[in-house]
Amino acid sequence: MTPTRLIRRAACAFALGALFVAAPPLHAQPKPANFIVIYCDDLGYGDLASYGHPSIRTPELDRMAAEGIRFTDFYSGAEVCTPSRAALLTGRYALRSGMAGGRRVLFPNSPGGLPASELTLAEALRDRGYATAHIGKWHLGIHEGSRPQDQGFDYAYGLPYSNDMDGRDGLPGGAAKSPNPPADGWNVPLIRNGEVIEQPADQTTLTRRYTEESLRFIRESRAAGKPFFLYLAHTMPHVPLFASPEQKGRSPRGVYGDTVEEIDTSTGRILAALREAGLAGDTLVVFTSDNGPWLTQGLQGGSAGLLREGKGSTWEGGMRVPALAWMPGRIAPAVVRQPASVLDLFPTALALAGATAPAGLSFDGRDLGPVLFEGRTRSEYPFFYYRGTRIFACRLGKWKAHFRTQGGYGDPQPAVHETPLLFNLEVDPSETTDVATNHPDIVAKIVAATKAHEATVVPVPLQL
Amino acid sequence: MTPTRLIRRAACAFALGALFVAAPPLHAQPKPANFIVIYCDDLGYGDLASYGHPSIRTPELDRMAAEGIRFTDFYSGAEVCTPSRAALLTGRYALRSGMAGGRRVLFPNSPGGLPASELTLAEALRDRGYATAHIGKWHLGIHEGSRPQDQGFDYAYGLPYSNDMDGRDGLPGGAAKSPNPPADGWNVPLIRNGEVIEQPADQTTLTRRYTEESLRFIRESRAAGKPFFLYLAHTMPHVPLFASPEQKGRSPRGVYGDTVEEIDTSTGRILAALREAGLAGDTLVVFTSDNGPWLTQGLQGGSAGLLREGKGSTWEGGMRVPALAWMPGRIAPAVVRQPASVLDLFPTALALAGATAPAGLSFDGRDLGPVLFEGRTRSEYPFFYYRGTRIFACRLGKWKAHFRTQGGYGDPQPAVHETPLLFNLEVDPSETTDVATNHPDIVAKIVAATKAHEATVVPVPLQL
Repeated sequence: MTPTRLIRRAACAFALGALFVAAPPLHAQPKPANFIVIYCDDLGYGDLASYGHPSIRTPELDRMAAEGIRFTDFYSGAEVCTPSRAALLTGRYALRSGMAGGRRVLFPNSPGGLPASELTLAEALRDRGYATAHIGKWHLGIHEGSRPQDQGFDYAYGLPYSNDMDGRDGLPGGAAKSPNPPADGWNVPLIRNGEVIEQPADQTTLTRRYTEESLRFIRESRAAGKPFFLYLAHTMPHVPLFASPEQKGRSPRGVYGDTVEEIDTSTGRILAALREAGLAGDTLVVFTSDNGPWLTQGLQGGSAGLLREGKGSTWEGGMRVPALAWMPGRIAPAVVRQPASVLDLFPTALALAGATAPAGLSFDGRDLGPVLFEGRTRSEYPFFYYRGTRIFACRLGKWKAHFRTQGGYGDPQPAVHETPLLFNLEVDPSETTDVATNHPDIVAKIVAATKAHEATVVPVPLQL
Repeated sequence: MTPTRLIRRAACAFALGALFVAAPPLHAQPKPANFIVIYCDDLGYGDLASYGHPSIRTPELDRMAAEGIRFTDFYSGAEVCTPSRAALLTGRYALRSGMAGGRRVLFPNSPGGLPASELTLAEALRDRGYATAHIGKWHLGIHEGSRPQDQGFDYAYGLPYSNDMDGRDGLPGGAAKSPNPPADGWNVPLIRNGEVIEQPADQTTLTRRYTEESLRFIRESRAAGKPFFLYLAHTMPHVPLFASPEQKGRSPRGVYGDTVEEIDTSTGRILAALREAGLAGDTLVVFTSDNGPWLTQGLQGGSAGLLREGKGSTWEGGMRVPALAWMPGRIAPAVVRQPASVLDLFPTALALAGATAPAGLSFDGRDLGPVLFEGRTRSEYPFFYYRGTRIFACRLGKWKAHFRTQGGYGDPQPAVHETPLLFNLEVDPSETTDVATNHPDIVAKIVAATKAHEATVVPVPLQL
């Protein structure tokens, strides 16, 4: 065993937030790879054809899945939008950056945002010479210090928050969940590099415009000879649902399907552009969602498939999401059933860039490289299901313990479980059968891991 | 348009049970094709990886799906076992053969069975020179006239009924739903060509033995230069769940997963044998299930994925099942979202055999050839969801009307809907949102189609 391997093994054995190791990773390559994250809003676990949906047609994503890795057990960083995005961009649970609790997400009148002091993936990669772009929904703050251009993005184009915020005066309650929402119902601005370029944003063409902006950014980065990081955060399929005139009415699944199928088309265009530019083998593309489906939106919300509950809850349906990873020639086609999460993406991208984390910064996620590029199984480590500032559940290997349970929306109080509920997620993915009494050792191990994790959380000012 | 086409179009326009047309079908071929039906017992819509299950590993079936057609909207012939199998083998709803109602399925002490007067697919194909075999579970009667050897099968090997019947004296209640059921708990016999060869049948090796019998039948039919029809009706994953020593404990999904993964391996062996024998392009293989998952079996029952309810009910989860069709070189890879059902298999197989239905026999299903081999869309026609002798629901195109609804098990009385419930199954596959009041025309059309169908049902003695 080489010294490098020894160090890596020691790091893997470390039970909590992994320190990024300074030695070059096994899959290091001389040329920094490009990285694209395609992030959907409220797309559910069951909403792609390759995850079993019968009437949403996603041929491009199905092809991406067939050519790459389809994850069955991939998690968002939180149960709702803002903390989930903070976790993605920092590689750490949102509570560590203060982006949790309070009103659950940022609103247009919220004073807080992602602190400027936080290191984002965009900043880390820009420091390594990457061109960086955020295209799409932001939702990490609108004030100086928190905006995309303050957080490492050379280029920013999109909405500052959710598309159902900033409703116009007199908008009827429930308008957002209509299958035909009013085009002028929300006053949300479209912003380019800090300047409002359209208000209200024409939401019907957002997915297409995000796509075109993304393609231009890829082209220009290539022309400049720079590696790039693209964070494409779609506004859809979050209500109110809008599709382009070309797409509207085409999906058998109705307007919800229209928006997902338009994202499918968008993804196909991006992968095709990478292939045509000869960049496919140098670009890791990850497709996923910020949380589960918003079930209270009725037919305008998605499906968690066989999973329990949806967005807002820490049952599996709230946080287990579709996830695909694609890098032809580097990633061999596979279905991966190991747990992984959006928290892993920061360390993964750093390793792909040939970079190391700054001294003193510890991630909650871990490099996915061994899984993606070497077909290896990572050693197990705990994943925490936060709801606001509290840990509601923890997954360790195939086991999940719930300390608290609560419906995503409309359930006023959590049920607190003095003896945690325990589910074997492999045998029981729908979380029907509590087996805690049969496995007190597992429960104790998870409780201990959770306490150890909590001890690492340094209090910071809460932003929400 | 050729006269043949005109005749076919006229037949398609016929709104009810299709008369099989005497003209040669468009996809007729000089050499009769072989036909294999692989039929699972209680496999749910969500139980294959290609239908979204996260922890049941089905690489062989996923490959079959990728090489062939995966149906998203395929139905069993009934909501429980016996009528479903009668529908498969007769191409007609089970009520027409009297195989519906009463105790819902046949029991070991039932006097009835599939009447000898019924024409089965095996009889029709044997008349055309096919070698025919039934391997696996029968459940269409144990008395003379109803047994496999009386219904057109040259060779028969398997169990006469469900594996949870004929429990031994003193067997504790609920033993069948145990993850470790007693090996000597049920006295069900293994029968070859009418002779009991093992009692109780060793259920742990059934899937493997069924597979070996199937492979031998394929080999021998080929050696004899005969086209063949193989009806391989697995006993699994019906409770009590048993897997072979090689498989047991291997699936992440537990013993339920063990049995499904063993069927996956079995299917892979059969397709490989067809490839090796040069028969792949001459053999239509259809893989499906007899009804939805038996949800009351807890973790020993399967999953309907995003569909509502399971086995025993006429909600989608009770009757929409996984279905794959494979015939390399004849079937192009596709996901097919048109409705289809097991009732279609008889006319499809007849057409593949270059045969026509006897005068006066009308099927409830229709030739799937245009869908399988030509990528065509069939004209819409009603599909009826029977529960016992009653029609509980009807699907026409994307619409489904429920006249009665009832849980699969434990729900003592159906709710009768004077105004039928109406669901758009494409927009609302989980059947959450009744839209009957918005579409009285659709409801009226479905009611009329149902009345017209009922008028075609000739009363016969009930067998169950």
